[in-house]
Amino acid sequence: MGHILAKNLGIALAGILLTSAAHAKLVHKQVEYKAGSLTSEGYLVYDDAKTGKRPGVLVTHNWLGLTHATEKKADMMAELGYVVFAADLYGKGIRPKDQTEAGKLATELKTDRKTLRERMKAALKVLQENKMVNPNKLAATGYCFGGTSAIELARSGAPLQAVVSFHGGLDSPTPADGKNIKAKILALHGADDPYEKPEDLNAFEKEMRDNNVDWQLVKFGGAVHSFTDEDAGNDNSKGAAYNARADKRSWLDMKNFLAETL
Amino acid sequence: MGHILAKNLGIALAGILLTSAAHAKLVHKQVEYKAGSLTSEGYLVYDDAKTGKRPGVLVTHNWLGLTHATEKKADMMAELGYVVFAADLYGKGIRPKDQTEAGKLATELKTDRKTLRERMKAALKVLQENKMVNPNKLAATGYCFGGTSAIELARSGAPLQAVVSFHGGLDSPTPADGKNIKAKILALHGADDPYEKPEDLNAFEKEMRDNNVDWQLVKFGGAVHSFTDEDAGNDNSKGAAYNARADKRSWLDMKNFLAETL
Repeated sequence: MGHILAKNLGIALAGILLTSAAHAKLVHKQVEYKAGSLTSEGYLVYDDAKTGKRPGVLVTHNWLGLTHATEKKADMMAELGYVVFAADLYGKGIRPKDQTEAGKLATELKTDRKTLRERMKAALKVLQENKMVNPNKLAATGYCFGGTSAIELARSGAPLQAVVSFHGGLDSPTPADGKNIKAKILALHGADDPYEKPEDLNAFEKEMRDNNVDWQLVKFGGAVHSFTDEDAGNDNSKGAAYNARADKRSWLDMKNFLAETL
Repeated sequence: MGHILAKNLGIALAGILLTSAAHAKLVHKQVEYKAGSLTSEGYLVYDDAKTGKRPGVLVTHNWLGLTHATEKKADMMAELGYVVFAADLYGKGIRPKDQTEAGKLATELKTDRKTLRERMKAALKVLQENKMVNPNKLAATGYCFGGTSAIELARSGAPLQAVVSFHGGLDSPTPADGKNIKAKILALHGADDPYEKPEDLNAFEKEMRDNNVDWQLVKFGGAVHSFTDEDAGNDNSKGAAYNARADKRSWLDMKNFLAETL
């Protein structure tokens, strides 16, 4: 009797899972776009089973540029029902071969925030002009350098509902620009991240506070830089390492935050 | 056509809500228990529609003692499916009449952590001995002084899976006791709480880090002390005030954390 019930339940559950899988039929394509004089190539992904206008989520890569790892995160966000665009801040075909090249490219943009903002705005525009996207429901997310870039986009006054930074650098060379922020901000941070000094965190908090931003900072104990990056190894002493626990928790935090704000 | 669909959907949704309400039939009772020589009276609440052993959640009151506000939080936790016990740290019938009395009682226990731990352990024992409770799945939650008390219980080495502090004082007079902590810790904190100094937060983080505790700290921008307390008014300049946004978000954080850990 109990077995028959369990079996029937099993069949019912399998049906639900199949239905759910059928809904998440992801379509992705490369999209060429201009950022000033630069030609970039980003990655657009969405669930083809959805109809009507949906919120758009921008996701920005870490210093390594738009890699398969970024595309995977974009796919995961698209599975949540959003139209997702992975930005390309370096330009079409410009994909750093190693950390030295990555560091050079990321540093150039981090020290030239005007250009960084232009490139982020150009990427956001791809979403804003996409017919599937509700342009009143936009979020920017990003990883490491991409998290910094997402907040920088908000500091430019972009019409964003939400920003989520995963282990991004949070401080700003122009904290007064915090007054332009329209987005609610969620900063997901490794509590042992050696690349973000206590004074940088304090500066971020001050900027948010001084400008009455709706902000949250989550510190994950035991996590260092790159805690969501499965390719980052597991040696915390290197300053950057994957942390499955913080990865899972921060993803859930993002998911709930986007559900709240979009 | 659209109206008919909407109406049918409405009926379907109403059915789900009724079912859901039928499942959350809360039963509550006053429970007398001993904490050393002290006789206390706590509040037990659970969903009568649930069967089998369930996780147990302790909830500890703020400095005002076990009031209707604490019972309401306990009810909300019971609606999540847990057997919930609201501790009474002051003793049966001892309910502070004003903030002066509350401050005196709370300070006595905060400066006598041995007695505080004894009283928390006695309250936890009520859950541990309850036949509905799975004693391997226990959490301690608390508000303000109750948050401090919940972490203090973990510092005593109590067999807890999880601790959630809502705007609790986080620092400890005996940080080395962090080594006894078995629970995962979630500290939900108002970023503008004037009662918790930066050095107190730093001390908490250091204690957690030094003892390899699984911890998270969430800072809610724009929130001061007592942000979950609907009776705290809305004037941040008083240092304690209700904040609907942080209340809602912190509740969701707690809910997800208990789902993960219990």
